[in-house]
Amino acid sequence: MKGFYSHYIDDDSWLIKENKWEHSLQNIHEALFSLGNGYLGVRAVLEEIPLGAMPGTYIAGVYDKMFSQVAELVNLPNPFNFTATAEGEKIALGIMDVLKHQRILNLKKGLLLRHTLYQSSKEHRFDYQCLRFVSMKNKNTGVMQIALTPLDSACEIDINTQIDTSVYNGPILTEGQKRHFRIKELGQFRNAGYLLVQTPEKKHTIVYWSGLYYEINGRKILAKDSILKIKLKKGQTIIFTKIFCIKCFPSQSKIVKHKREAFKKFYKVLHTEFDVLVEEHIKSWEKLWQKAGILVEGKADLQQNIRFNIYHMLICAPADNGFSSIGARTLTGEGYRGHIFWDAEIFLMPFYLFTMPKIAKNILLYRCSRLKRAREIAKKLKFRGIMFPWESADTGEEETPAWARDIDGSITKVYTHKMEHHITADIAYAVYNYFIATGDERFMERYGYEVLFETARFWVSRAEYNKEKNRYEINHVIGPDEFHVNVNNNAYTNMMAKWNLTVARKMFYKIREDAPSVSQRLQRKLKLKCEEVKNWKKVASLISINMNKEGVIEQFDGYFKLKKVILTETDENGMPVLPRGLKIKELAKTQLVKQADTLMLLYLLSDNFDLKTKKVNYDFYIKRTLHKSSLSPSIHSILALECRDLHRAYDLFNVSLCIDINNLYGNTKDGIHGACLGGTWQAIVFGFAGISIKEERLFIDPRMPRSWKRMIFSLFWKGKRLKLDLTNESIKLRAVSSKEEEIEIGIFDKLTSIRTNEDYVFEREMPALITEYYY
Amino acid sequence: MKGFYSHYIDDDSWLIKENKWEHSLQNIHEALFSLGNGYLGVRAVLEEIPLGAMPGTYIAGVYDKMFSQVAELVNLPNPFNFTATAEGEKIALGIMDVLKHQRILNLKKGLLLRHTLYQSSKEHRFDYQCLRFVSMKNKNTGVMQIALTPLDSACEIDINTQIDTSVYNGPILTEGQKRHFRIKELGQFRNAGYLLVQTPEKKHTIVYWSGLYYEINGRKILAKDSILKIKLKKGQTIIFTKIFCIKCFPSQSKIVKHKREAFKKFYKVLHTEFDVLVEEHIKSWEKLWQKAGILVEGKADLQQNIRFNIYHMLICAPADNGFSSIGARTLTGEGYRGHIFWDAEIFLMPFYLFTMPKIAKNILLYRCSRLKRAREIAKKLKFRGIMFPWESADTGEEETPAWARDIDGSITKVYTHKMEHHITADIAYAVYNYFIATGDERFMERYGYEVLFETARFWVSRAEYNKEKNRYEINHVIGPDEFHVNVNNNAYTNMMAKWNLTVARKMFYKIREDAPSVSQRLQRKLKLKCEEVKNWKKVASLISINMNKEGVIEQFDGYFKLKKVILTETDENGMPVLPRGLKIKELAKTQLVKQADTLMLLYLLSDNFDLKTKKVNYDFYIKRTLHKSSLSPSIHSILALECRDLHRAYDLFNVSLCIDINNLYGNTKDGIHGACLGGTWQAIVFGFAGISIKEERLFIDPRMPRSWKRMIFSLFWKGKRLKLDLTNESIKLRAVSSKEEEIEIGIFDKLTSIRTNEDYVFEREMPALITEYYY
Repeated sequence: MKGFYSHYIDDDSWLIKENKWEHSLQNIHEALFSLGNGYLGVRAVLEEIPLGAMPGTYIAGVYDKMFSQVAELVNLPNPFNFTATAEGEKIALGIMDVLKHQRILNLKKGLLLRHTLYQSSKEHRFDYQCLRFVSMKNKNTGVMQIALTPLDSACEIDINTQIDTSVYNGPILTEGQKRHFRIKELGQFRNAGYLLVQTPEKKHTIVYWSGLYYEINGRKILAKDSILKIKLKKGQTIIFTKIFCIKCFPSQSKIVKHKREAFKKFYKVLHTEFDVLVEEHIKSWEKLWQKAGILVEGKADLQQNIRFNIYHMLICAPADNGFSSIGARTLTGEGYRGHIFWDAEIFLMPFYLFTMPKIAKNILLYRCSRLKRAREIAKKLKFRGIMFPWESADTGEEETPAWARDIDGSITKVYTHKMEHHITADIAYAVYNYFIATGDERFMERYGYEVLFETARFWVSRAEYNKEKNRYEINHVIGPDEFHVNVNNNAYTNMMAKWNLTVARKMFYKIREDAPSVSQRLQRKLKLKCEEVKNWKKVASLISINMNKEGVIEQFDGYFKLKKVILTETDENGMPVLPRGLKIKELAKTQLVKQADTLMLLYLLSDNFDLKTKKVNYDFYIKRTLHKSSLSPSIHSILALECRDLHRAYDLFNVSLCIDINNLYGNTKDGIHGACLGGTWQAIVFGFAGISIKEERLFIDPRMPRSWKRMIFSLFWKGKRLKLDLTNESIKLRAVSSKEEEIEIGIFDKLTSIRTNEDYVFEREMPALITEYYY
Repeated sequence: MKGFYSHYIDDDSWLIKENKWEHSLQNIHEALFSLGNGYLGVRAVLEEIPLGAMPGTYIAGVYDKMFSQVAELVNLPNPFNFTATAEGEKIALGIMDVLKHQRILNLKKGLLLRHTLYQSSKEHRFDYQCLRFVSMKNKNTGVMQIALTPLDSACEIDINTQIDTSVYNGPILTEGQKRHFRIKELGQFRNAGYLLVQTPEKKHTIVYWSGLYYEINGRKILAKDSILKIKLKKGQTIIFTKIFCIKCFPSQSKIVKHKREAFKKFYKVLHTEFDVLVEEHIKSWEKLWQKAGILVEGKADLQQNIRFNIYHMLICAPADNGFSSIGARTLTGEGYRGHIFWDAEIFLMPFYLFTMPKIAKNILLYRCSRLKRAREIAKKLKFRGIMFPWESADTGEEETPAWARDIDGSITKVYTHKMEHHITADIAYAVYNYFIATGDERFMERYGYEVLFETARFWVSRAEYNKEKNRYEINHVIGPDEFHVNVNNNAYTNMMAKWNLTVARKMFYKIREDAPSVSQRLQRKLKLKCEEVKNWKKVASLISINMNKEGVIEQFDGYFKLKKVILTETDENGMPVLPRGLKIKELAKTQLVKQADTLMLLYLLSDNFDLKTKKVNYDFYIKRTLHKSSLSPSIHSILALECRDLHRAYDLFNVSLCIDINNLYGNTKDGIHGACLGGTWQAIVFGFAGISIKEERLFIDPRMPRSWKRMIFSLFWKGKRLKLDLTNESIKLRAVSSKEEEIEIGIFDKLTSIRTNEDYVFEREMPALITEYYY
């Protein structure tokens, strides 16, 4: 794309492109090309809002539920709309003839660029270029600049760039479309427009300030209004710059004060040079990529797609100290109503934990600041301790809708919130791993230990003692594999509960020794006696899983007796296809699995299982897993790599990498699959780069595909930044830290001492073995 | 429909029903079931606004053009929306299961009634009933009442009944969808909501006041807000009543004053009992039906459909002294952007002229108050006098868009405004007929004569003298048959122009004699000399048409030389179908005709042609006419009747009668075909009832189909109301008047003197002849 904004375009490895406008791809591209900064998320709806467009403007954590079963991420008024009409003809895709059209998302700079060449019915051409971004520097701010040139004749142009309030949350099943806000105020003040909307139930109040200036013949004019009429000469370019600030405040009170504050912020931005605004924004992005970038020398689109994945985790990274977390579809769509699942802690958190640990902390703070609700949920079901909701929104209450659509499209009652209890252990797991990676004692003292103890308590109350078998059972659950509802002793759930109890007990004794005052305070607060902790050990020791004589773990009681169905056919991506004649309703009667379940266990508690067990189970379950969740391929890729099923490891990785960019699950229009972004990152880092944590130590043992020549990235680990430059044969390493010290790192499976702030190069001792990884 | 509003339901001959909700019929029914009162027109969009709904709220005469080629009738915020959500499930069609659904438009009372029985996903039933109307008494007022009952369980209901601002003018060709208003103010005041919107270009300012009260357990509560939450017990009925006032004022000035005035009006209505509001409204409708009703004893649905046709003319009757006229699709949709064509004067006006002459006057006032623009149009094209625009909106400027969609869907350049000049004679014709029927000298003195003289002047300047042939030619025109563009000497246009000149001259000499002061004033004002009027006679006498030796009038010069194509096949309604293989683009090369053109001439200037000429031409053109306009079947029906092609007369009539109710032209969704309503009425009255005007006298000579036993209706004629009770054999007649006098009426082709306020019964002298009409 040559043109007005060409200096903002980096090389192809940073770009995602739309080279043609296709109506059928419109809603998918809106999600893919989204902009955001963790506070704001904006779908890349075209400025002219073509028919069928699904505008989406979201503020992290802003939910409402007046007209829905459960709370929904609110689709707020769209500030990025801009319509231009030339003598009654709309300069818009789907309306005028399009001679050329391109949009580019520059991942490096967080800019969305556009260049469209139109031709009217009178055969007059219009050159239309646009640059927009949601500032990574000033998180309330968005900027859009449009350069418009009538190429063939003078003309009068009508502009409408009001903030569009006619948006709505998309239609859902039993609810239809709905608007989760109402307009409370609007008006003009000092050449700026303001809009104040409020959500009807929760009274979130959102103020918009918006201003427009345009430059013509070198003169800069501040528009008095968002609707204007301008005469242009042939060949004359007009440049519109629209600046807006959006700020949400929690209640109806102090509206005047908040409005004024937002105005001040806006006014400052409005009077900052456009170039300065862009540069500040780009600099903020540079810093992010320094922390989170992964350079892979390999095929071109691989690098692009990896950056695309990381980009999407950067634009949804919550920076609000626990006000919000990351919903299943990030801030790019309304899938799952913006609800937060285990996806956030188990799939996404590792990325943040190892690149920007503060964000990982925020993700945990989101849960930790809602423990009161988690306690209420447990209490309501007559359990003890805390129990996290399966789907969570703003309050931390259970937000799972009573009904949902099944994968065959039929309406089905939802049981996940009643049975998918593993999430409580998953969050405890994330808390513990956060602690291991960061050593953040303060967090643990304030929240972490309490979560570990209270979740342990929950599992004790949740487990039932079976006298006959002398074991504790966790019955009536759903594991990660949601095909099988209401099962007993799901191996994943049981082992995670057992782990939870064990770790809680371990930490209990650790702080009793290391920090007795903390321990005492917590014991008092939680009325936690040593006898109770002793019982955790007993219960943990009596929670078990079934295993057959080959060492295959039974996913749940009776699973082996289900109908054996082996997946043989695959689609063009190497993904298994549902055997013909098998109905969705019958899946529960078969051994077919929706997604990693037992294998998820082997992945998360990797240390607890030997390679032989992993291989046996991998071989068994891979033939039975349909990957009907975007959470599945990445985890399987990592296990496949460990089990040396290399070709499949790479196939599954590529599926995971491209789920959204290629719309492989067919529902990218509803937003980017957040968990999949995180899973893909884990497959890159914990899979191919060979990073693993064993006994609280970080190991590096690269095992990249042959086509990957080299990986360069960095990881935060226990307060240091490890700068890594890897090939399968060598590890270049520097641990950047403010302190000079010695640390132990696992190099090719061998613990090695290194000093911070020094460069190291290690060569693999037996490079011959590497050929094994040829794929 | 039994239920809450059953006492508002009349017998079937007054009802239009929707017995099932079908998504594909949604937009058609929105048009068919529209409400209106001449000031406001509201499409019958369902209160819950299902997906794909096309809400339409129009104020007669309110156009804007900021974002369109030409002015468009503005689709204003929709006050009739109401969504109810029961525990997160939307009580709405397309969302909940529907056990029963019915809507009834009661034509007699102007009420839209609804009864829907829903079932939620939890299998709880909800009874939903609704009554709404746009008051015929207080034209700014609308009322909606909803009775909601949860039948199977207690529940909490969320109500949202804000005025919906997210409506837009539907997408057109080169323009896309657009919003022709902006929200200027909104807020709450004394338990009422107000909304102030403004059109961006013309600054029409529209204020809405809206209030809601609900009754539960006999208590009436005024809601403080349009969003509310209410708990209902099982079986408990809540009745919501929403009252709104809409008022448009012309400019930005005095907003406060107008808002206050509108509030006063609203406040009064809000505090009037619902029953009283309905009764007042019904009484106003009663009066309308007394004037405009036609009782036909015959088949049931015939009566229903006739009433449906008349209903739609009653709800769009302009009562604003010329601020607006009737657009091509009335106030029921956005087809033709709400523009006004000759449809208003030639097709619709006769209905009003003979039932409510004040409305007919308003239709003419619409033109007469825009003579300045008409003069400018003529001047711009270097003609003299006045020239009316082919498409007109608010200003009276030419509003024909440069492009439109052809009947084959392709985009085509529009020439109508450049060539379809007959409209100028058509309006003169309407003015003259208004005068004949009403004798309204005041109107003529103020406007009428000027229109006649100035249009005559136009035609003299428009015609070109052909020396060789010693005739005046009107070249480069389009006649009513728009298949043939840029033709010379279109018979219809020529003869209407000739008629215009002749009548203008006649009236000139008439007033010179009868009202010399009027004549002098006009002569001065128009600088009209007697020589000029003499020239009118000369020009008129030298305008001619071609006729072949059989007496067939050539539609335009060279028409007979075009390819002869005879229509033979017909569809299930007896309508001709396009011969296979013939392309739309080739139509111009054939003798095929879009709609009545030469026959339109024979109809409008009936007196000037003998029956033989009519028959010859009817036989010729009927075989060549495709009726690709809803203006065509009715006129052909009348001529078919006159030419004794009785079966076809009735077929064509039935097509005309059912064009909208059966969506025969496939575009009823864009609004009711106004001209067709008027044409159908003319076919009933001037066709089957045998009413005709000959030499300024009204004749009655019924010639109904055998299945019509009797017709009862009344007509205004020269200040009297003629109450008619007709069979083919007898005429019962009473001329109601405030004066006792003797008048002459043509009874069965024979002029007869009758006295006002006396009953007469005339029997046909030769009833045997009637059998001729057997069909």
